[in-house]
Amino acid sequence: MENKSFINKNPALLLVDVQKAFLEKDYPGIKRNNYDAEFICGKTLTEWRKLKLPIIHVRHSSTNKKSKLHKSKPGFEFNDYAKPLNNEIVLTKKVNSAFIGTRLEELLINLKIKTLVIVGMTTNHCLSSTVRMSGNLGFETYLVSDSTACFNTKGIDGKMIDCDLIYESSIASLNEEFATIINSIELFALLK
Amino acid sequence: MENKSFINKNPALLLVDVQKAFLEKDYPGIKRNNYDAEFICGKTLTEWRKLKLPIIHVRHSSTNKKSKLHKSKPGFEFNDYAKPLNNEIVLTKKVNSAFIGTRLEELLINLKIKTLVIVGMTTNHCLSSTVRMSGNLGFETYLVSDSTACFNTKGIDGKMIDCDLIYESSIASLNEEFATIINSIELFALLK
Repeated sequence: MENKSFINKNPALLLVDVQKAFLEKDYPGIKRNNYDAEFICGKTLTEWRKLKLPIIHVRHSSTNKKSKLHKSKPGFEFNDYAKPLNNEIVLTKKVNSAFIGTRLEELLINLKIKTLVIVGMTTNHCLSSTVRMSGNLGFETYLVSDSTACFNTKGIDGKMIDCDLIYESSIASLNEEFATIINSIELFALLK
Repeated sequence: MENKSFINKNPALLLVDVQKAFLEKDYPGIKRNNYDAEFICGKTLTEWRKLKLPIIHVRHSSTNKKSKLHKSKPGFEFNDYAKPLNNEIVLTKKVNSAFIGTRLEELLINLKIKTLVIVGMTTNHCLSSTVRMSGNLGFETYLVSDSTACFNTKGIDGKMIDCDLIYESSIASLNEEFATIINSIELFALLK
């Protein structure tokens, strides 16, 4: 009963920046957490396709030519787990939030979508910015905690803060204030 | 030379949620960092008034009647250090970001303001949301690190994350990506 009611909300899956640039393993000073994130994004995408629920892919196109997310770079490509099909919506953004400089809000309103399930990269930058705006714009927002990852980040004292701490505090800051945090197992149970 | 050029940018001071609700000292399970935040907000406000630079106060009006930030509660009032003067702009918001549901962006464009110095509460919720949107909307954004504070926040494992960790990781996540982080001493030097 509760499950059916979740599917009946016609929740859209919003995949944020599931692009190859974030695949790089540890290099000096920079460490990433949760290497399963893209796999979970892909698994979620497969579920959405099976259920024929709405899917929106958002990718980041950096204006900085040196960025791994510049459209000239291999990192710009979608991750193999999350390649859009021809009939799926793809939006391209230039800043962190998927709602800024895109037609995302208008599109959701036109499609009468009120519930968003958000997955993707990176936890503290583009994902957090998108989740915050989604909640503040009035969408019922779910963030899938194991679908996201981030990197060690430089603190204002110049020292690196570990990616696990950045991840945990980012998710905690979103929790209840902007979104409901669930993991993929909880999400898949809602879709059964 | 560099200093003059900062003032010549006509930077606006944006005070976010400098309201009495955040004055409460530690209570069981909840701890706040940086009790000087509001004093620093007030000091910054005094500098802005002296220099006759633009000032915008934003306050939070919770839609939840039980919230300390509901307009019926004493916590809704501006902190004594940051009371607006009659000729200063006051905007009221209902969600975290000062840019959502307000005329802030339109106002800044009309006033030809391109540079924002942001101070206020709380680091990981309303302040972060506002700083992220300010940067993403294209404003040159400065965040004054010692003008803000936050509270212990519940992690997804149910355990509380210390306010100092939440503060440090929030600021680190904003740094360089959405804003330039400076402390009030550095800011006041730019204004000399």
